[in-house]
Formats: sequence, structure tokens, C-alpha cells
Amino acid sequence: MTELVDLISFIRNEFNKSLNNYSIPKEPKYLYDPIKFSLKSKGKRFRPIIVHLSGRNFKCDPDDLMKVSMGLELLHNFTLVHDDIMDSDDIRRNMPTVHKKYDVPSAILAGDGIFTISQLILGNIQDDSHQLLQKYNEMVLEICEGQALDKQFEMEEKLNLNDYVEMVKKKTGALLGACLSLPALIVNERIEKINQLYETGKSLGVGFQIHDDIFEIFGNEDVIGKSLGSDISSNKKTAISIVAKEKNKVKWNKLTHQFDGKDLNNIRKFLERNNVKTEVESIADSYFSAAFSSLKNLHLDDHNELFNFFKMVQERSY
Amino acid sequence: MTELVDLISFIRNEFNKSLNNYSIPKEPKYLYDPIKFSLKSKGKRFRPIIVHLSGRNFKCDPDDLMKVSMGLELLHNFTLVHDDIMDSDDIRRNMPTVHKKYDVPSAILAGDGIFTISQLILGNIQDDSHQLLQKYNEMVLEICEGQALDKQFEMEEKLNLNDYVEMVKKKTGALLGACLSLPALIVNERIEKINQLYETGKSLGVGFQIHDDIFEIFGNEDVIGKSLGSDISSNKKTAISIVAKEKNKVKWNKLTHQFDGKDLNNIRKFLERNNVKTEVESIADSYFSAAFSSLKNLHLDDHNELFNFFKMVQERSY
Repeated sequence: MTELVDLISFIRNEFNKSLNNYSIPKEPKYLYDPIKFSLKSKGKRFRPIIVHLSGRNFKCDPDDLMKVSMGLELLHNFTLVHDDIMDSDDIRRNMPTVHKKYDVPSAILAGDGIFTISQLILGNIQDDSHQLLQKYNEMVLEICEGQALDKQFEMEEKLNLNDYVEMVKKKTGALLGACLSLPALIVNERIEKINQLYETGKSLGVGFQIHDDIFEIFGNEDVIGKSLGSDISSNKKTAISIVAKEKNKVKWNKLTHQFDGKDLNNIRKFLERNNVKTEVESIADSYFSAAFSSLKNLHLDDHNELFNFFKMVQERSY
Repeated sequence: MTELVDLISFIRNEFNKSLNNYSIPKEPKYLYDPIKFSLKSKGKRFRPIIVHLSGRNFKCDPDDLMKVSMGLELLHNFTLVHDDIMDSDDIRRNMPTVHKKYDVPSAILAGDGIFTISQLILGNIQDDSHQLLQKYNEMVLEICEGQALDKQFEMEEKLNLNDYVEMVKKKTGALLGACLSLPALIVNERIEKINQLYETGKSLGVGFQIHDDIFEIFGNEDVIGKSLGSDISSNKKTAISIVAKEKNKVKWNKLTHQFDGKDLNNIRKFLERNNVKTEVESIADSYFSAAFSSLKNLHLDDHNELFNFFKMVQERSY
């Protein structure tokens, strides 16, 4: 495991170096200052790490992998910038969000610019970047659909876990699927393998997102880097809220109605006493298990690094 | 000329048919309803017409040309949706803008989706779509830079005509440049020719935009499809405002300060009496002339259709 930890921190460092070295123009400041601000916040780099670990299985050219990982991390950044406007979120990773630091017009444009730069980086891969960009843009449209469902669900009262999972597969899973599958695509692996890698990422994404939903209520504010409970305030549908409602709708509605945006104690107690937390945790685990077996079925030459990294993702505490 | 008029209306009809036949999914409604709403408003289709007229010079495959024109018109749509949010514009082409009809989050997401669909359509062109998408995304980044300069200029007092022209070349000209040059790119024309077509479009764009600035004050509200004078209300820098300030800064500032958002009479009188209108018209004409000679220097087999269409653009009254 120490070897993997070292490898991961090597990838993270190399990635951060590449991103730092990527030259963003100075002018016009209205466009590039918010872009630079948004790219300064570092994140955990889960997505670039998955790209590199997946690519090692397919003996991809490391330079190509770096471009894929940059393209996908920038895409991730772009979606965060626009989602934060749509969700009126003020803080991310202990920093003001772009539309808070600047304003909404600047943040819309910064997002558009980051998305475009992401495409330019991917288009710079010579071999088969045509097919790569098609797959990439199909995935982006899935992310848009996922975000749309997420917003739609805010206005819907009745929602079951399946609806939620379908939304998360698009909103969070599709990008992880791209991280796993695009390296296989650039070395022309069989389409079945590429598709299965994509599906593996979707399962991983659901496990990952459900854990995020749990941290949003049970996490440590300083570590998470934003105020907790915002899903409750904005009536976001999460695995937690869906299962909680199934347990005791009246009580849950009352508790969330009373929530002052700060004190999560009563909500936490309810979720623990009614086994909501443990049930949701086991739902997340079932999706991690699906990702594990999907990965095994791929018969990669060496899936250990990916496998162990998935384990680390499953066991993360923030 | 009648032949050209017929050809143009043929292209417009074929284009509208293709766009109508392009299948936009039904669900999620939160994403696709605003996209459909935005694509319903027809516009003048200047950009698709330029793509097809340019492509006829290079014997491009008509199906490829249709894809290029769809991709570029959708890109144009995407920029309008986001720009309207940034500029708080409520009406476009006699219809509410997307964020007015729906809301800001829906419009941000709809724009992102339209941009992505535009890329998917272009990526569907088999020959050399790799290079095509690179040129396209470089052009998109120029449009973002142009929009950034436009927003930046709102906050700046001192601005000369050169700054304004540089902004317009990016914001409006780059896309017209792409309409002219991408057809040449897909048949692998020489890079010098491609670049010169791009520059021709930039000159055309400046002439076109300055005319738009004039219509914004002297046009007919019903024909233009939006309320006039909004450039003045939002302190947008236009060729008109720059030349007017050079003539009589104190008087111009007073007039624009007094503007109630409706009655343009005093402003119109000032601009006419001080020859601002005629001077700005002749600036526009100089850019149209640049576009004409640039087009001639390209030595296309038959540039007459494009040439005459440029003339029609120059002589349009809305």
C-alpha cells in the first residue's frame, strides 16, 4: 500500500506541476483572472489520479495521459464554477466561489473559458483525438443532464432511490467513467472494454457521491472546506433525505424545516437513531462493490493499483 | 442578384429543416426545454449562409457544410444565451430571453448544453474533424475574450476606437471568420488561405457590429425585436458612444445620463447634428471595404456569391 501512496502523491505532484505550467494568458483580465482564481484551488485530484492509474494498464503514453487528466480536471472545474452559481453556493474548498469572489457574469464566462481550454488540451492529443473528443462531449452532455435532474429534483417531493442513483450516475459517475475509459480509447482498446470502464466509473461515482452526501451532514466543516447542511437548506435530494423520508416523513420534514442552517445535532441524532446513516452507508458500499467486481471482470493486466485506489476512495473520511 | 436571393432563401430553408430535424431529447426537461425554446427563435441565419456560400467555393461536401453551419449557429445561440444573462437583457428577437422565460440556472445549463451539442455535431464530420475542432475551440476562446473585453469596457471611461475594434473582432468577427474559413479547412486548403478567410470575417464582423450599434439607436424597435437604447443604459462602449464623446463629451454624458430608457429623440438629434451618425457609418463602410478587398485577394474561383452577400449584409436595414 505504501508504494501506491507514493505513486499517488507522485501523480498528484506531477499533475499540479503540469497545471501550474499551463500558460493562461494575462489579458483580458475579466476572463483570465477568475479562471486563474478557480484553478488555484487544488482539490484532491481524484480524477487525474484515476486517469493515470487507468492509463498505466493500457501502456498509454504518459504525455497523452497528462493531457487527458488535465482536460478532465478542467472540465470538473468548469462544472463546479457553473454549479456553484446555479446552487448559490458561496464557499468551496475553504475559498469563496468564483461568482462570490467576482460576480455572476464573470463566473459564467470563466466557466465557458475553462470548458473551452479543456477541449483545446484534449484536442492536442494527436492519435485519435477525434474519437476522444466525441466520447468526451457525449459525457459532458450526460453531466449536463445529471445537473438538470438534480435541479429538477429540488422541486419534486416524491423521489425514490433509483431516480437519485440515475441522476448521480450522470452528474458524478459519467466523469469518473471518462477518467477510466478515455485512456483505453486513445490506445484503441475494444469498444466493449471502453464501455465497461465507463460503467465501472458510474458505479464508483454513486458510491463516492453517497459518501459526499453523508459528509455533508456528518463531516467536519473545516476539513470539508464549506459549511455543512446546505443540501438540507436547498432541498437537495440525497440518499440521506430519501431514506430518512421513507423512515419517518413527518418527523424528517419537521426537522429539516426547523434547520437554521447551522446546528445539525437534531438531524444527526434522528439519522443515527433511525439507522438512516448505516443504511445509506451500506447502499454506498453496494455501489463500491459493484465497481470492484466490474473492475475485476475487465481482466486488466494489472488492476491492483486501480483496485486499491478505489478502496482508498471508499475509505476516505472527507 | 435574384439568383443569389433565391439561393440564400434555399440555404435558409434547408438549414431550418436540418435544425428542426435534429433530434433534441425530451428528458430531462430542465435541460432540454430551455434548449428547444432557445433554438425556436430563428434569427437571420447570416452565419449558416456564409458557411454554405464559402463552402461552394471549395467544393465541400454539402452534408459536411450543413454540419459546420449547424455547429456554428448553435455556438452563436449558446453565446447569446449566456451573454443575455451577463447583460441582463430580457428580450431578444421579440421573445423573452432564456433566463427570463425560465431562470438563470436553467439558462446557464442550457447554454452549456447547446455548446456541447455544437461540438458533437462538428465532431461528426469524419474528415479532419480533429483539426476542425481545434480551430473551432481557438475561435470560441477568442469569443470569450471579446465578451470579457466588452464587459471590462463597461467599467472603463477612456476608450478609443481601436480598443473597441479589437474587442469586436473577437466578439463578433471571430465567428464570422470561422464561418468563412472552416469550410476551407475541411478540404485541406492552404493555411494562408484559411487564415486570410478568418481575417476577412473579422473585418466583416466589425462592419456588421457597427451597423448593429447604429440600429440600436436609430432602428425600428419592432423590426429589431428588442427595446432600443439598452447599450446606453448599460454603459456599453460602442462606435457611436466613442465618437460622440470625442465630439462633445460633456453634452453626450448629460444626454445619456438623462436617458429614461425609452425616448431616444434628443440622443438621435445630437448624433445627427454633430455628424456622429455619418462618421460612424463611414467607419463601418471602411471595414466592409476591407472585407471586400480581402475577399478579392483570396483569388477564389468564384467569389461573386460571397461578395454580393457581403453587399447585402452591408445594406441591411435591421
